[in-house]
Amino acid sequence: MLKLDFHPAGRHFLQIPGPSPVPDRILRAMSYPTIDHRGPEFGELGLKVLDGIKKIFKTQQPVVIYPASGTGAWEAALSNTLSPGDHVLMFETGHFATLWKKMAEKLGLKPEFLGLPGIEGWRRGVQPQMIEERLRADPQHAIKAVCVVHNETSTGVTSNIAAVRRAIDAGGHPALLLVDTISGLACADYRHDEWGVDVTVSGSQKGLMLPPGISFNAISPKAMAANQHAKLPRSFWDWSEIVEMNKTGYWPYTPNTNLLYGLHEAIEMILGEGLDNVFARHERLAEATRRAVRAWGLEIQCADPAVYSPVLTGVMMPDGVDADAVRKLIYERFDMSLGTGLGKMKGRMFRIGHLGDCNDLTLLATLAGCEMGLRLAGVPIKQSGMPAAMEWLSQAPKTSGLKAAA
Amino acid sequence: MLKLDFHPAGRHFLQIPGPSPVPDRILRAMSYPTIDHRGPEFGELGLKVLDGIKKIFKTQQPVVIYPASGTGAWEAALSNTLSPGDHVLMFETGHFATLWKKMAEKLGLKPEFLGLPGIEGWRRGVQPQMIEERLRADPQHAIKAVCVVHNETSTGVTSNIAAVRRAIDAGGHPALLLVDTISGLACADYRHDEWGVDVTVSGSQKGLMLPPGISFNAISPKAMAANQHAKLPRSFWDWSEIVEMNKTGYWPYTPNTNLLYGLHEAIEMILGEGLDNVFARHERLAEATRRAVRAWGLEIQCADPAVYSPVLTGVMMPDGVDADAVRKLIYERFDMSLGTGLGKMKGRMFRIGHLGDCNDLTLLATLAGCEMGLRLAGVPIKQSGMPAAMEWLSQAPKTSGLKAAA
Amino acid sequence: MLKLDFHPAGRHFLQIPGPSPVPDRILRAMSYPTIDHRGPEFGELGLKVLDGIKKIFKTQQPVVIYPASGTGAWEAALSNTLSPGDHVLMFETGHFATLWKKMAEKLGLKPEFLGLPGIEGWRRGVQPQMIEERLRADPQHAIKAVCVVHNETSTGVTSNIAAVRRAIDAGGHPALLLVDTISGLACADYRHDEWGVDVTVSGSQKGLMLPPGISFNAISPKAMAANQHAKLPRSFWDWSEIVEMNKTGYWPYTPNTNLLYGLHEAIEMILGEGLDNVFARHERLAEATRRAVRAWGLEIQCADPAVYSPVLTGVMMPDGVDADAVRKLIYERFDMSLGTGLGKMKGRMFRIGHLGDCNDLTLLATLAGCEMGLRLAGVPIKQSGMPAAMEWLSQAPKTSGLKAAA
Amino acid sequence: MLKLDFHPAGRHFLQIPGPSPVPDRILRAMSYPTIDHRGPEFGELGLKVLDGIKKIFKTQQPVVIYPASGTGAWEAALSNTLSPGDHVLMFETGHFATLWKKMAEKLGLKPEFLGLPGIEGWRRGVQPQMIEERLRADPQHAIKAVCVVHNETSTGVTSNIAAVRRAIDAGGHPALLLVDTISGLACADYRHDEWGVDVTVSGSQKGLMLPPGISFNAISPKAMAANQHAKLPRSFWDWSEIVEMNKTGYWPYTPNTNLLYGLHEAIEMILGEGLDNVFARHERLAEATRRAVRAWGLEIQCADPAVYSPVLTGVMMPDGVDADAVRKLIYERFDMSLGTGLGKMKGRMFRIGHLGDCNDLTLLATLAGCEMGLRLAGVPIKQSGMPAAMEWLSQAPKTSGLKAAA
Repeated sequence: MLKLDFHPAGRHFLQIPGPSPVPDRILRAMSYPTIDHRGPEFGELGLKVLDGIKKIFKTQQPVVIYPASGTGAWEAALSNTLSPGDHVLMFETGHFATLWKKMAEKLGLKPEFLGLPGIEGWRRGVQPQMIEERLRADPQHAIKAVCVVHNETSTGVTSNIAAVRRAIDAGGHPALLLVDTISGLACADYRHDEWGVDVTVSGSQKGLMLPPGISFNAISPKAMAANQHAKLPRSFWDWSEIVEMNKTGYWPYTPNTNLLYGLHEAIEMILGEGLDNVFARHERLAEATRRAVRAWGLEIQCADPAVYSPVLTGVMMPDGVDADAVRKLIYERFDMSLGTGLGKMKGRMFRIGHLGDCNDLTLLATLAGCEMGLRLAGVPIKQSGMPAAMEWLSQAPKTSGLKAAA
Repeated sequence: MLKLDFHPAGRHFLQIPGPSPVPDRILRAMSYPTIDHRGPEFGELGLKVLDGIKKIFKTQQPVVIYPASGTGAWEAALSNTLSPGDHVLMFETGHFATLWKKMAEKLGLKPEFLGLPGIEGWRRGVQPQMIEERLRADPQHAIKAVCVVHNETSTGVTSNIAAVRRAIDAGGHPALLLVDTISGLACADYRHDEWGVDVTVSGSQKGLMLPPGISFNAISPKAMAANQHAKLPRSFWDWSEIVEMNKTGYWPYTPNTNLLYGLHEAIEMILGEGLDNVFARHERLAEATRRAVRAWGLEIQCADPAVYSPVLTGVMMPDGVDADAVRKLIYERFDMSLGTGLGKMKGRMFRIGHLGDCNDLTLLATLAGCEMGLRLAGVPIKQSGMPAAMEWLSQAPKTSGLKAAA
Repeated sequence: MLKLDFHPAGRHFLQIPGPSPVPDRILRAMSYPTIDHRGPEFGELGLKVLDGIKKIFKTQQPVVIYPASGTGAWEAALSNTLSPGDHVLMFETGHFATLWKKMAEKLGLKPEFLGLPGIEGWRRGVQPQMIEERLRADPQHAIKAVCVVHNETSTGVTSNIAAVRRAIDAGGHPALLLVDTISGLACADYRHDEWGVDVTVSGSQKGLMLPPGISFNAISPKAMAANQHAKLPRSFWDWSEIVEMNKTGYWPYTPNTNLLYGLHEAIEMILGEGLDNVFARHERLAEATRRAVRAWGLEIQCADPAVYSPVLTGVMMPDGVDADAVRKLIYERFDMSLGTGLGKMKGRMFRIGHLGDCNDLTLLATLAGCEMGLRLAGVPIKQSGMPAAMEWLSQAPKTSGLKAAA
Repeated sequence: MLKLDFHPAGRHFLQIPGPSPVPDRILRAMSYPTIDHRGPEFGELGLKVLDGIKKIFKTQQPVVIYPASGTGAWEAALSNTLSPGDHVLMFETGHFATLWKKMAEKLGLKPEFLGLPGIEGWRRGVQPQMIEERLRADPQHAIKAVCVVHNETSTGVTSNIAAVRRAIDAGGHPALLLVDTISGLACADYRHDEWGVDVTVSGSQKGLMLPPGISFNAISPKAMAANQHAKLPRSFWDWSEIVEMNKTGYWPYTPNTNLLYGLHEAIEMILGEGLDNVFARHERLAEATRRAVRAWGLEIQCADPAVYSPVLTGVMMPDGVDADAVRKLIYERFDMSLGTGLGKMKGRMFRIGHLGDCNDLTLLATLAGCEMGLRLAGVPIKQSGMPAAMEWLSQAPKTSGLKAAA
């Protein structure tokens, strides 16, 4: 038996911004027996999940499901649309934007990294006007793609993708728009078609509430056309054969059957609750978290209220406090995992995940655990955050998660 | 699919004083394939659980495991030791003591119900001196058994069984001592042998963290001797054949195999944590709960601090408040189940379970849910209970449930 | 980890006549989280299973579901309808009929055991004319109940209950008819109302495909009336309070929640397949088994083709062969459990279960395992039984278990 | 609920050559709660699986575990060691060798496809002397790698990798040796270090008995050195960062946590049984299958007994028989999935998988299902294959899967 099944009393609180806790319904679905991926039952399953996932991306276009984790879907988005040496414009929103840029370099692209100076870019999200200006300065259309992160998991900032689209269109620039919403999908509103995104990248282990292991590319017709000419070598990631075979519900190679069972269940749960209700629920829990953080007198990592993330909240530590020491104390004493500070924010903040399978009481437990840990670690806090969070959760409208009366 | 698997976001908080939440480890163990209850693997399983359960009852004597719920084990305790018309002395500690007395009547026994007047008996537990007096008034030894409830689930009072034993012995009365610790076992310290209990009754769905469905009789040699002469008709409940066959790990009739898998896992978890740590953990969570209740300015049902239950806390409502309306509001809005007031306490209190698979953060979520519900229901509360509970849980020693550092 | 989870390659074949293999669907349903047995969701579940189980008993009358195994439901049938010293007529169909009679004696009833001499009664089932004759010889109606086993699990004989009813009615005798169909329900056709049965006893671990742990009494109005006057002491088993509370979907004491989840799923599976299809499937597999046994040149325990059991087949060994040695060899070498010979048949036969979650290929594996074991044990067999069984399964109509074409 | 959970009676027989049936132990392990992939418990898990998997590859060198299915690991092997335009020598053993070659072309490599003419290459496996000759004709060492499939899943041929190694060494050629043992690992003996393989590719859903979703590259020092100079663009697949981070048990990006739980369990099961016992068990079942096929008078796809696969057996149909019609009949009537003929063998054969979680009785059920299906489809067969298979399984030594006596 794995030691990680050691569990003297009560559940671990997994409050990192993903992987998020997997609901029992999904774990049970994942234990259905593996079936023949060439048999008739599989085709039926395939068609159902391929159709359902489109509703979650708000697209009528194909969504490719890879039997690979999210990082792979990043690579797929680049390699399916670009050629070696292509210029791409990326925006530094945080650690994950930085990793995506490094990937572009490794693949032989020429990424240019826009951003605000210092850690400001990590606190304010994408600046569409900077993109617009840069594209206007590219009359030759050397820039082939603009890559931005919708919900930056390292900071808790959710950028405005529609505004990025408008920035590209403003100067009539033909660059493709590639968006990573790995941690945003099914937490924050996302509209692949309406926002004119060319490739949307996402993954399973956040708002979809699945374990890691499958990932997605939603593909616009323009991106699909680019695929014909893009010269980056690719085989596993190549869209064309997958999209073709997906028409009958099958994949050219062995799909991740048991995770597709889980995806089927997740889609039922999410569409059953209603996407708008899902978004409202995340917003509501996020606001409760921010009210607690403010009561503590600590700073929220995201400095622009317009782009607060509904998925996670970054909490900055006062100077001289090692955020990871606080996290460790909380982990050891209260059996709760929080997200670490990444990259430029290493040791300076921790991240509270409030996404996926989370409700009012779970969030309050999370905030209580943070608060006790902060005090035990000697971090000066102004006052308890519980009253503010509890009052908000008592008063703010709730559109789902209510039990029917007897 | 059952509607009760409907689950838009986050887990239900099952904070009734049993059935308690079943840990995943136990649910997984219960899904092992059912085996031949006459095959060699079963015998091995049988011997292991029959041995392990003795450690939890702190006995060297046989413990019978019935494939039936706890109420059945009550009947077994009576029918294996008594004859029609026998006088038994029972003590009114609350609703379950009352139900046990009704059962004794239905079985043709003559129970005499001792107790403090009004609801006082429901707030103070067994009064050993009353038992002693009554037995001294029975020089003919017409009373064949004394029946008491160790942990009264309807009130949150844990009576002193050793004191009851002394009360019986004081006058040299030969009555058997039958004790119900259905909700106390594996939460509060219990010592079948040391306390001289003749029959201890327990069940699966409380401190053992199993679903309901199996129950127990721990049997002293004196009780086993009484079994030879007891004339209440019995077959399913009869100890003799079961105890005999149990020697090889088997049962005379079909046992509840999958629940025995769960019991095996529960025993490993409980003995792995250490019984003393299990008790300390329950005490610690109970004290946090009481501190919150006191901060709210509400009354704890148990009026005698010496017999506070580590399993559950009864919270009394101010006059004019319908406790069930509060419970209903909490259930509907915060997805948490609390225990209702039973019998004499109907509508006057609710019960918070803090037993079994429960940890610091789960308890704080529970208290937060109660507090928000009380406020929303308009129950006047003096102040938030969260600071008192959080301070206690931050400072009070914790001997289990700590995660090792990396 | 339990050693019984040791499983180097492939599944154990559990081909005893119960507990039968539990389908994954049911195991998954049993892992739903335990809920408040007093909450609104529970009431909904309760009403659904109480309604669904009636369809399987083919009754409009109440069916009591006990949180106890089948032997308890035997006791319930007797103690709810009879008084100490009552005469009851029981028929010796095999080991389980014998055990039921012993129980009647233990409960203080006066059972009279009718039967054919020697092991003949164990090979031919209930003889209705013997019952009729005996009742005609009781003009004073001293006999209060006739108790018969529908499907005798120890022999593989399924008696004709409608004929027993006619035998009782023939002489106008008012005795109650109590029937045990623990292993027959949901395998062989059973009609509680149409056949005029007063109490039908059944259990979970056979045709219902659940683990052991819940059991049933279906109750006629006449039996319910008898309950008012029956003087055997009873409390746990008493119908009246249960039937009353069941009207709202609840139980007077803690029900076996997780097994009720399983029951809900089992009812969906069985009614989904259709009861007639379920019966036809069992008949089909039973006939395949008998064809193999005949090809082997071995004798089928049931000597009357009219009452062959669709649930199990008893296979008699030639003189001098220890059936249990054959079973042991098969168990050790081929990882398959078969039923042992019980009581009078100890060592003289083994029993092949072909009930519940079993299909054509599983049955053929079972027969192949038996055949290899018989040969390895040196039991002389005339010829392979596989061709006969395979031909039958290829040709005999199949009304369920067919996969739809792509 | 998914329709594929519809299951009227008995289990589906998944007898394709992978995905193989996932044992319950592994499904249960996969349902452990997802944990923080940056927390201390994860590091412990990571080190354990990274160490254990080496024992199964028989290597002391790093094994990279990708959160992606097997096809991805093919791409990883090529892109980590080769540069655009590199010549590689591949051998046509069947459909999967052909797909790997197509992938090489898509990635911009120049594969040369050696092979026997017609379908002969699909019946005889790798011809080491052809490789040797070809390499001797490459004195400039233009060929950078030799790529072969160890166990060709499309045909049932297991090539001799040690002989390929000798063929390369014979002429002192420096080409890398890349081997696909996706379906061979943990079924057939495989020795990464001893055989001098540079990159071994494998997957989860065959001998490891997991669902699809993780895959492997075992890497020789020579391959690791090649990685420094290989110019194919790569990021997700790049070994260097993964191998570096794996030293502490972590991954640079989100790993497939729940499949790693399953891998942990699989390693315990396989090493617990003993690799030699695992191989012997597969050989034993394969031989039983071949004896049945020969009795039927049908041809085994693999024409060279020296390279019969222990994993699967290809069964060729007589001229004029559509193998897929036979498969469909078996699927619909007997609820069993068999492998289809792929590529050149489309419609001409079917494949019986006898790998992973399979035992004697499951195999006999499989053979019985094939035989009944062949007869019902009107395929002329000489005689039943059951006697030959049953005699073999009764007599051939068995070193694992035996149950201990009581």
